Amino acid sequence: MKLNQKLSTSSPRSYEQVCPVARALDVVGQRWTLLIVRDLMFGPLRFSDLREGLPGLAPNLLSERMRWLVSEGLVERIGLPPPAARQVYALTARGRELGPVIHELARFGVGDWADADAFGPPRRLLRGALLALMSPSELGEPSWSAEIRLAEGTIGLEVAARPSSGGSLNRLRLSDPPPPGAEPDVTVTASLGTLVELRRGLLARSYAERRGRLAVTGSRPATVELRRLLGWT
Amino acid sequence: MKLNQKLSTSSPRSYEQVCPVARALDVVGQRWTLLIVRDLMFGPLRFSDLREGLPGLAPNLLSERMRWLVSEGLVERIGLPPPAARQVYALTARGRELGPVIHELARFGVGDWADADAFGPPRRLLRGALLALMSPSELGEPSWSAEIRLAEGTIGLEVAARPSSGGSLNRLRLSDPPPPGAEPDVTVTASLGTLVELRRGLLARSYAERRGRLAVTGSRPATVELRRLLGWT
Repeated sequence: MKLNQKLSTSSPRSYEQVCPVARALDVVGQRWTLLIVRDLMFGPLRFSDLREGLPGLAPNLLSERMRWLVSEGLVERIGLPPPAARQVYALTARGRELGPVIHELARFGVGDWADADAFGPPRRLLRGALLALMSPSELGEPSWSAEIRLAEGTIGLEVAARPSSGGSLNRLRLSDPPPPGAEPDVTVTASLGTLVELRRGLLARSYAERRGRLAVTGSRPATVELRRLLGWT
Repeated sequence: MKLNQKLSTSSPRSYEQVCPVARALDVVGQRWTLLIVRDLMFGPLRFSDLREGLPGLAPNLLSERMRWLVSEGLVERIGLPPPAARQVYALTARGRELGPVIHELARFGVGDWADADAFGPPRRLLRGALLALMSPSELGEPSWSAEIRLAEGTIGLEVAARPSSGGSLNRLRLSDPPPPGAEPDVTVTASLGTLVELRRGLLARSYAERRGRLAVTGSRPATVELRRLLGWT
Protein backbone atom coordinates (compact mmCIF):
# COMPACT_ATOMS: atom_id res chain seq x y z
CA MET A 1 0.00 0.00 0.00
CA LYS A 2 2.74 2.36 1.06
CA LEU A 3 4.71 1.31 -2.01
CA ASN A 4 1.74 1.96 -4.30
CA GLN A 5 1.24 5.37 -2.82
CA LYS A 6 4.87 6.14 -3.40
CA LEU A 7 4.70 5.00 -6.99
CA SER A 8 1.66 7.13 -7.71
CA THR A 9 3.41 10.17 -6.28
CA SER A 10 6.37 11.89 -7.78
CA SER A 11 8.67 11.46 -4.81
CA PRO A 12 11.55 13.89 -4.53
CA ARG A 13 15.06 12.65 -4.88
CA SER A 14 16.32 11.72 -1.44
CA TYR A 15 19.55 13.28 -0.21
CA GLU A 16 20.55 9.78 0.94
CA GLN A 17 22.21 11.14 4.05
CA VAL A 18 21.98 9.74 7.56
CA CYS A 19 21.08 13.06 9.14
CA PRO A 20 17.76 14.27 10.54
CA VAL A 21 18.06 17.59 8.67
CA ALA A 22 18.45 15.76 5.35
CA ARG A 23 15.61 13.43 6.32
CA ALA A 24 13.32 16.38 7.05
CA LEU A 25 14.22 17.99 3.73
CA ASP A 26 13.57 14.70 1.95
CA VAL A 27 9.99 15.09 3.19
CA VAL A 28 9.35 18.84 3.01
CA GLY A 29 12.25 20.25 0.97
CA GLN A 30 10.52 20.23 -2.39
CA ARG A 31 9.53 23.56 -3.84
CA TRP A 32 6.13 24.88 -2.57
CA THR A 33 5.70 22.16 0.06
CA LEU A 34 6.42 24.33 3.09
CA LEU A 35 4.22 27.13 1.75
CA ILE A 36 1.31 24.69 1.52
CA VAL A 37 1.96 23.60 5.11
CA ARG A 38 2.16 27.26 6.14
CA ASP A 39 -1.27 27.93 4.62
CA LEU A 40 -2.78 24.99 6.54
CA MET A 41 -1.32 26.12 9.88
CA PHE A 42 -4.34 28.29 10.69
CA GLY A 43 -6.92 25.63 9.83
CA PRO A 44 -8.24 23.27 7.12
CA LEU A 45 -8.64 24.52 3.56
CA ARG A 46 -10.33 23.35 0.39
CA PHE A 47 -8.27 22.65 -2.70
CA SER A 48 -9.66 25.82 -4.24
CA ASP A 49 -8.57 27.86 -1.19
CA LEU A 50 -5.07 26.48 -1.51
CA ARG A 51 -5.00 27.31 -5.21
CA GLU A 52 -6.15 30.84 -4.55
CA GLY A 53 -3.42 31.35 -1.95
CA LEU A 54 -0.66 30.00 -4.20
CA PRO A 55 -1.37 31.52 -7.62
CA GLY A 56 2.15 30.76 -8.84
CA LEU A 57 1.68 27.02 -8.40
CA ALA A 58 0.06 25.09 -11.27
CA PRO A 59 -2.99 23.05 -10.19
CA ASN A 60 -1.51 19.72 -11.29
CA LEU A 61 1.63 20.42 -9.27
CA LEU A 62 -0.50 21.38 -6.27
CA SER A 63 -2.35 18.06 -6.62
CA GLU A 64 0.95 16.24 -6.72
CA ARG A 65 2.20 18.01 -3.61
CA MET A 66 -1.05 17.27 -1.76
CA ARG A 67 -0.78 13.56 -2.64
CA TRP A 68 2.78 13.58 -1.36
CA LEU A 69 1.83 15.32 1.89
CA VAL A 70 -1.02 12.84 2.43
CA SER A 71 1.21 9.84 1.66
CA GLU A 72 3.80 11.11 4.15
CA GLY A 73 1.14 11.46 6.85
CA LEU A 74 1.45 15.24 7.22
CA VAL A 75 -1.95 16.12 5.77
CA GLU A 76 -5.29 14.32 5.72
CA ARG A 77 -8.41 14.76 3.65
CA ILE A 78 -11.51 15.32 5.71
CA GLY A 79 -15.08 15.26 4.43
CA LEU A 80 -17.16 18.01 6.01
CA PRO A 81 -20.75 17.01 6.88
CA PRO A 82 -23.71 18.54 4.99
CA PRO A 83 -24.63 21.23 4.21
CA ALA A 84 -20.96 22.03 3.52
CA ALA A 85 -20.29 18.49 2.25
CA ARG A 86 -16.91 19.34 0.92
CA GLN A 87 -13.50 17.83 1.16
CA VAL A 88 -10.90 19.85 2.99
CA TYR A 89 -7.23 19.30 3.69
CA ALA A 90 -6.03 19.47 7.30
CA LEU A 91 -2.66 19.02 8.95
CA THR A 92 -2.24 15.85 10.99
CA ALA A 93 -0.55 15.94 14.41
CA ARG A 94 2.70 15.10 12.61
CA GLY A 95 2.11 17.93 10.13
CA ARG A 96 1.61 20.39 12.99
CA GLU A 97 5.07 19.45 14.22
CA LEU A 98 6.30 21.61 11.34
CA GLY A 99 4.99 24.70 13.18
CA PRO A 100 8.37 25.54 14.74
CA VAL A 101 10.16 25.01 11.39
CA ILE A 102 7.83 27.47 9.66
CA HIS A 103 8.07 29.90 12.55
CA GLU A 104 11.87 29.92 12.50
CA LEU A 105 11.90 30.37 8.71
CA ALA A 106 9.54 33.31 9.15
CA ARG A 107 11.72 34.84 11.87
CA PHE A 108 14.71 34.53 9.57
CA GLY A 109 12.74 36.07 6.69
CA VAL A 110 11.91 39.14 8.81
CA GLY A 111 15.63 39.94 8.78
CA ASP A 112 15.39 41.41 5.31
CA TRP A 113 11.78 42.43 5.21
CA ALA A 114 11.47 46.00 3.99
CA ASP A 115 8.51 48.06 2.79
CA ALA A 116 5.98 46.07 4.78
CA ASP A 117 3.63 49.05 4.63
CA ALA A 118 3.90 49.63 0.89
CA PHE A 119 3.55 45.92 0.11
CA GLY A 120 1.64 44.24 2.91
CA PRO A 121 0.75 40.57 3.08
CA PRO A 122 -2.71 39.43 2.05
CA ARG A 123 -5.21 39.35 4.89
CA ARG A 124 -5.12 35.56 5.26
CA LEU A 125 -1.36 35.76 5.98
CA LEU A 126 -1.64 38.61 8.47
CA ARG A 127 -1.61 36.41 11.57
CA GLY A 128 1.40 34.55 10.22
CA ALA A 129 3.18 37.83 9.52
CA LEU A 130 2.62 38.92 13.13
CA LEU A 131 3.77 35.54 14.44
CA ALA A 132 6.99 36.03 12.49
CA LEU A 133 7.68 39.10 14.66
CA MET A 134 7.20 37.19 17.91
CA SER A 135 9.77 35.50 20.17
CA PRO A 136 7.66 33.34 22.49
CA SER A 137 10.80 32.00 24.16
CA GLU A 138 11.29 35.48 25.66
CA LEU A 139 7.94 35.40 27.49
CA GLY A 140 7.57 35.31 31.25
CA GLU A 141 5.21 32.95 33.01
CA PRO A 142 1.80 34.67 33.12
CA SER A 143 -1.09 34.49 30.70
CA TRP A 144 -2.33 37.71 29.12
CA SER A 145 -4.10 38.97 26.02
CA ALA A 146 -3.66 41.75 23.49
CA GLU A 147 -5.32 43.38 20.55
CA ILE A 148 -3.10 44.46 17.69
CA ARG A 149 -4.67 47.16 15.54
CA LEU A 150 -3.08 47.31 12.11
CA ALA A 151 -4.16 49.26 9.06
CA GLU A 152 -5.22 45.94 7.50
CA GLY A 153 -7.40 44.92 10.44
CA THR A 154 -7.34 44.00 14.11
CA ILE A 155 -5.82 40.76 15.35
CA GLY A 156 -6.41 39.22 18.76
CA LEU A 157 -3.59 37.59 20.69
CA GLU A 158 -3.95 35.26 23.63
CA VAL A 159 -0.88 34.09 25.52
CA ALA A 160 -1.29 31.02 27.73
CA ALA A 161 0.61 30.65 30.99
CA ARG A 162 3.95 28.91 30.66
CA PRO A 163 3.43 25.15 30.69
CA SER A 164 5.71 22.86 32.70
CA SER A 165 7.01 21.42 29.44
CA GLY A 166 6.47 21.84 25.72
CA GLY A 167 7.46 24.51 23.24
CA SER A 168 6.65 28.15 23.88
CA LEU A 169 5.21 28.65 20.37
CA ASN A 170 2.08 26.76 21.42
CA ARG A 171 1.40 29.43 24.05
CA LEU A 172 0.31 31.88 21.33
CA ARG A 173 -3.17 32.04 19.81
CA LEU A 174 -3.87 34.65 17.15
CA SER A 175 -7.38 35.32 15.93
CA ASP A 176 -8.57 37.42 13.03
CA PRO A 177 -10.79 39.14 14.02
CA PRO A 178 -10.43 38.99 17.83
CA PRO A 179 -13.09 36.92 19.64
CA PRO A 180 -16.25 38.95 20.31
CA GLY A 181 -16.38 40.52 23.76
CA ALA A 182 -12.63 40.14 24.28
CA GLU A 183 -11.20 42.53 26.84
CA PRO A 184 -7.51 42.61 26.06
CA ASP A 185 -4.95 43.45 28.75
CA VAL A 186 -3.06 45.60 26.28
CA THR A 187 -3.82 47.25 22.94
CA VAL A 188 -1.24 48.15 20.31
CA THR A 189 -1.90 50.46 17.38
CA ALA A 190 0.78 50.57 14.68
CA SER A 191 1.35 49.72 11.05
CA LEU A 192 2.83 46.34 10.23
CA GLY A 193 5.86 48.14 8.81
CA THR A 194 6.44 49.91 12.13
CA LEU A 195 6.28 46.58 13.96
CA VAL A 196 8.78 45.10 11.50
CA GLU A 197 11.17 48.03 12.00
CA LEU A 198 10.84 47.76 15.78
CA ARG A 199 11.58 44.03 15.60
CA ARG A 200 14.60 44.55 13.40
CA GLY A 201 15.97 47.20 15.76
CA LEU A 202 15.78 49.88 13.04
CA LEU A 203 13.36 51.92 15.14
CA ALA A 204 13.36 52.60 18.89
CA ARG A 205 10.08 52.24 20.75
CA SER A 206 10.25 55.62 22.47
CA TYR A 207 10.94 57.39 19.17
CA ALA A 208 8.08 55.56 17.43
CA GLU A 209 5.73 56.57 20.26
CA ARG A 210 6.79 60.21 20.13
CA ARG A 211 6.27 60.27 16.38
CA GLY A 212 2.77 58.87 16.75
CA ARG A 213 3.67 55.69 14.84
CA LEU A 214 3.04 53.46 17.87
CA ALA A 215 0.48 53.61 20.66
CA VAL A 216 0.32 51.09 23.50
CA THR A 217 -2.31 51.20 26.22
CA GLY A 218 -3.05 48.68 28.95
CA SER A 219 -1.76 47.13 32.10
CA ARG A 220 1.91 47.50 32.92
CA PRO A 221 2.72 43.75 33.25
CA ALA A 222 1.06 42.92 29.91
CA THR A 223 2.87 45.82 28.25
CA VAL A 224 6.22 44.52 29.51
CA GLU A 225 5.45 41.04 28.21
CA LEU A 226 4.34 42.41 24.87
CA ARG A 227 7.61 44.30 24.46
CA ARG A 228 9.61 41.17 25.15
CA LEU A 229 7.47 39.15 22.76
CA LEU A 230 7.83 41.65 19.91
CA GLY A 231 11.50 42.42 20.59
CA TRP A 232 11.25 46.17 21.17
CA THR A 233 14.30 48.01 22.40
CA MET B 1 27.24 45.73 -7.86
CA LYS B 2 24.39 43.84 -6.27
CA LEU B 3 22.80 43.51 -9.70
CA ASN B 4 26.02 42.15 -11.21
CA GLN B 5 26.34 39.64 -8.44
CA LYS B 6 22.81 38.51 -9.05
CA LEU B 7 23.39 38.19 -12.77
CA SER B 8 26.49 36.10 -12.27
CA THR B 9 24.56 33.77 -9.98
CA SER B 10 21.78 31.49 -10.98
CA SER B 11 19.15 32.96 -8.68
CA PRO B 12 16.22 30.76 -7.75
CA ARG B 13 12.77 31.69 -8.93
CA SER B 14 11.18 33.86 -6.25
CA TYR B 15 7.81 32.85 -4.84
CA GLU B 16 6.77 36.50 -5.28
CA GLN B 17 4.78 36.43 -2.05
CA VAL B 18 4.70 39.11 0.61
CA CYS B 19 5.38 36.71 3.45
CA PRO B 20 8.52 36.21 5.53
CA VAL B 21 8.32 32.42 5.11
CA ALA B 22 8.30 32.78 1.33
CA ARG B 23 11.08 35.36 1.56
CA ALA B 24 13.23 32.99 3.63
CA LEU B 25 12.62 30.18 1.14
CA ASP B 26 13.52 32.51 -1.73
CA VAL B 27 16.93 32.71 -0.08
CA VAL B 28 17.52 29.20 1.29
CA GLY B 29 14.80 27.05 -0.30
CA GLN B 30 16.86 25.78 -3.22
CA ARG B 31 17.92 22.17 -3.13
CA TRP B 32 21.14 21.53 -1.12
CA THR B 33 21.37 25.07 0.26
CA LEU B 34 20.33 24.26 3.81
CA LEU B 35 22.59 21.20 3.90
CA ILE B 36 25.55 23.41 3.02
CA VAL B 37 24.58 25.81 5.81
CA ARG B 38 24.20 22.84 8.17
CA ASP B 39 27.75 21.70 7.38
CA LEU B 40 29.12 25.18 8.12
CA MET B 41 27.33 25.43 11.48
CA PHE B 42 30.22 23.83 13.36
CA GLY B 43 32.91 26.00 11.79
CA PRO B 44 34.53 27.12 8.51
CA LEU B 45 35.25 24.56 5.78
CA ARG B 46 37.27 24.42 2.60
CA PHE B 47 35.53 23.81 -0.70
CA SER B 48 37.00 20.31 -0.74
CA ASP B 49 35.59 19.62 2.76
CA LEU B 50 32.16 20.69 1.60
CA ARG B 51 32.44 18.47 -1.48
CA GLU B 52 33.43 15.51 0.62
CA GLY B 53 30.45 16.02 2.93
CA LEU B 54 27.96 16.31 0.07
CA PRO B 55 28.96 13.58 -2.37
CA GLY B 56 25.58 13.74 -4.13
CA LEU B 57 26.11 17.35 -5.17
CA ALA B 58 28.03 18.01 -8.39
CA PRO B 59 31.01 20.39 -7.90
CA ASN B 60 29.70 22.97 -10.38
CA LEU B 61 26.37 23.08 -8.55
CA LEU B 62 28.18 23.41 -5.22
CA SER B 63 30.12 26.37 -6.68
CA GLU B 64 26.89 27.93 -7.81
CA ARG B 65 25.30 27.50 -4.38
CA MET B 66 28.36 28.98 -2.67
CA ARG B 67 28.27 32.02 -4.96
CA TRP B 68 24.60 32.44 -4.13
CA LEU B 69 25.19 32.16 -0.37
CA VAL B 70 28.01 34.70 -0.58
CA SER B 71 25.93 37.11 -2.68
CA GLU B 72 23.09 36.86 -0.14
CA GLY B 73 25.47 37.65 2.71
CA LEU B 74 25.05 34.32 4.51
CA VAL B 75 28.55 33.01 3.84
CA GLU B 76 31.90 34.71 3.42
CA ARG B 77 35.22 33.57 2.00
CA ILE B 78 38.09 33.92 4.40
CA GLY B 79 41.77 33.55 3.56
CA LEU B 80 43.63 31.69 6.28
CA PRO B 81 47.13 33.02 7.04
CA PRO B 82 50.23 30.94 6.20
CA PRO B 83 51.17 28.18 6.65
CA ALA B 84 47.58 27.08 5.97
CA ALA B 85 47.13 29.81 3.34
CA ARG B 86 43.85 28.42 2.14
CA GLN B 87 40.46 29.85 1.43
CA VAL B 88 37.65 28.68 3.65
CA TYR B 89 33.94 29.38 3.72
CA ALA B 90 32.40 30.61 6.96
CA LEU B 91 28.90 31.62 7.97
CA THR B 92 28.34 35.32 8.55
CA ALA B 93 26.31 36.56 11.54
CA ARG B 94 23.28 36.55 9.24
CA GLY B 95 24.04 33.00 8.17
CA ARG B 96 24.23 31.87 11.78
CA GLU B 97 20.67 33.15 12.21
CA LEU B 98 19.69 30.00 10.30
CA GLY B 99 20.74 27.92 13.32
CA PRO B 100 17.21 27.71 14.75
CA VAL B 101 15.77 26.82 11.30
CA ILE B 102 18.21 23.93 10.92
CA HIS B 103 17.64 22.84 14.50
CA GLU B 104 13.86 22.71 14.08
CA LEU B 105 14.20 20.82 10.80
CA ALA B 106 16.44 18.33 12.58
CA ARG B 107 13.98 17.95 15.46
CA PHE B 108 11.23 17.27 12.93
CA GLY B 109 13.44 14.76 11.12
CA VAL B 110 14.00 12.81 14.33
CA GLY B 111 10.28 11.97 14.27
CA ASP B 112 10.84 9.25 11.71
CA TRP B 113 14.42 8.36 12.37
CA ALA B 114 14.78 4.61 12.68
CA ASP B 115 17.80 2.33 12.69
CA ALA B 116 20.17 4.99 13.98
CA ASP B 117 22.45 2.22 15.24
CA ALA B 118 22.54 0.22 12.03
CA PHE B 119 23.03 3.33 9.88
CA GLY B 120 24.70 6.00 11.96
CA PRO B 121 25.65 9.47 10.77
CA PRO B 122 29.22 10.16 9.71
CA ARG B 123 31.43 11.42 12.52
CA ARG B 124 31.36 15.03 11.34
CA LEU B 125 27.55 15.06 11.72
CA LEU B 126 27.53 13.42 15.14
CA ARG B 127 27.25 16.67 17.10
CA GLY B 128 24.41 17.79 14.85
CA ALA B 129 22.64 14.47 15.33
CA LEU B 130 22.84 14.90 19.10
CA LEU B 131 21.63 18.50 18.87
CA ALA B 132 18.60 17.21 16.96
CA LEU B 133 17.64 15.24 20.08
CA MET B 134 17.84 18.28 22.35
CA SER B 135 15.10 20.68 23.49
CA PRO B 136 17.02 23.61 24.96
CA SER B 137 13.75 25.45 25.67
CA GLU B 138 13.05 22.83 28.36
CA LEU B 139 16.20 23.67 30.32
CA GLY B 140 16.21 25.24 33.76
CA GLU B 141 18.45 28.16 34.67
CA PRO B 142 21.80 26.70 35.78
CA SER B 143 24.91 25.98 33.77
CA TRP B 144 26.24 22.42 33.72
CA SER B 145 28.27 20.08 31.56
CA ALA B 146 28.03 16.52 30.30
CA GLU B 147 29.93 13.89 28.42
CA ILE B 148 27.97 11.73 26.01
CA ARG B 149 29.69 8.44 25.27
CA LEU B 150 28.44 6.92 22.03
CA ALA B 151 29.78 3.94 20.12
CA GLU B 152 31.05 6.40 17.49
CA GLY B 153 32.95 8.55 20.00
CA THR B 154 32.55 10.82 22.97
CA ILE B 155 30.98 14.26 22.68
CA GLY B 156 31.28 17.03 25.26
CA LEU B 157 28.30 19.23 26.09
CA GLU B 158 28.42 22.52 27.90
CA VAL B 159 25.22 24.29 28.87
CA ALA B 160 25.47 27.99 29.70
CA ALA B 161 23.27 29.58 32.36
CA ARG B 162 20.00 30.97 31.04
CA PRO B 163 20.60 34.47 29.64
CA SER B 164 18.18 37.30 30.36
CA SER B 165 17.23 37.31 26.69
CA GLY B 166 18.11 35.46 23.50
CA GLY B 167 17.34 32.01 22.18
CA SER B 168 18.00 28.95 24.28
CA LEU B 169 19.75 27.14 21.41
CA ASN B 170 22.81 29.34 21.95
CA ARG B 171 23.18 27.94 25.46
CA LEU B 172 24.47 24.64 24.05
CA ARG B 173 28.08 23.96 23.05
CA LEU B 174 28.98 20.53 21.73
CA SER B 175 32.57 19.51 21.21
CA ASP B 176 34.00 16.47 19.51
CA PRO B 177 36.09 15.32 21.32
CA PRO B 178 35.37 16.96 24.71
CA PRO B 179 37.87 19.63 25.80
CA PRO B 180 40.92 18.10 27.54
CA GLY B 181 40.67 18.02 31.31
CA ALA B 182 36.91 18.49 31.27
CA GLU B 183 35.18 17.27 34.42
CA PRO B 184 31.58 16.82 33.37
CA ASP B 185 28.75 17.06 35.91
CA VAL B 186 27.08 14.07 34.30
CA THR B 187 28.11 11.26 31.98
CA VAL B 188 25.80 9.33 29.68
CA THR B 189 26.69 6.07 27.98
CA ALA B 190 24.28 4.85 25.30
CA SER B 191 24.10 4.19 21.59
CA LEU B 192 22.77 6.95 19.36
CA GLY B 193 19.84 4.67 18.47
CA THR B 194 18.92 4.34 22.15
CA LEU B 195 18.96 8.13 22.54
CA VAL B 196 16.74 8.45 19.46
CA GLU B 197 14.26 5.92 20.84
CA LEU B 198 14.22 7.67 24.22
CA ARG B 199 13.58 11.00 22.52
CA ARG B 200 10.78 9.60 20.40
CA GLY B 201 9.12 8.07 23.48
CA LEU B 202 9.54 4.55 22.07
CA LEU B 203 11.69 3.53 25.03
CA ALA B 204 11.32 4.38 28.71
CA ARG B 205 14.40 5.51 30.59
CA SER B 206 13.99 3.08 33.48
CA TYR B 207 13.60 0.15 31.09
CA ALA B 208 16.65 1.20 29.07
CA GLU B 209 18.70 1.44 32.28
CA ARG B 210 17.58 -1.98 33.49
CA ARG B 211 18.47 -3.53 30.14
CA GLY B 212 21.93 -2.00 30.27
CA ARG B 213 21.29 0.15 27.19
CA LEU B 214 21.67 3.40 29.13
CA ALA B 215 23.95 4.43 31.99
CA VAL B 216 23.88 7.85 33.61
CA THR B 217 26.23 8.89 36.39
CA GLY B 218 26.75 12.27 37.97
CA SER B 219 25.18 14.93 40.12
CA ARG B 220 21.46 14.83 40.66
CA PRO B 221 20.68 18.38 39.39
CA ALA B 222 22.66 17.88 36.18
CA THR B 223 20.97 14.52 35.64
CA VAL B 224 17.54 16.13 35.93
CA GLU B 225 18.50 18.84 33.45
CA LEU B 226 19.92 16.28 31.05
CA ARG B 227 16.66 14.31 31.10
CA ARG B 228 14.66 17.42 30.29
CA LEU B 229 17.06 18.38 27.52
CA LEU B 230 16.93 14.96 25.88
CA GLY B 231 13.20 14.44 26.46
CA TRP B 232 13.33 11.24 28.48
CA THR B 233 10.13 9.96 30.03
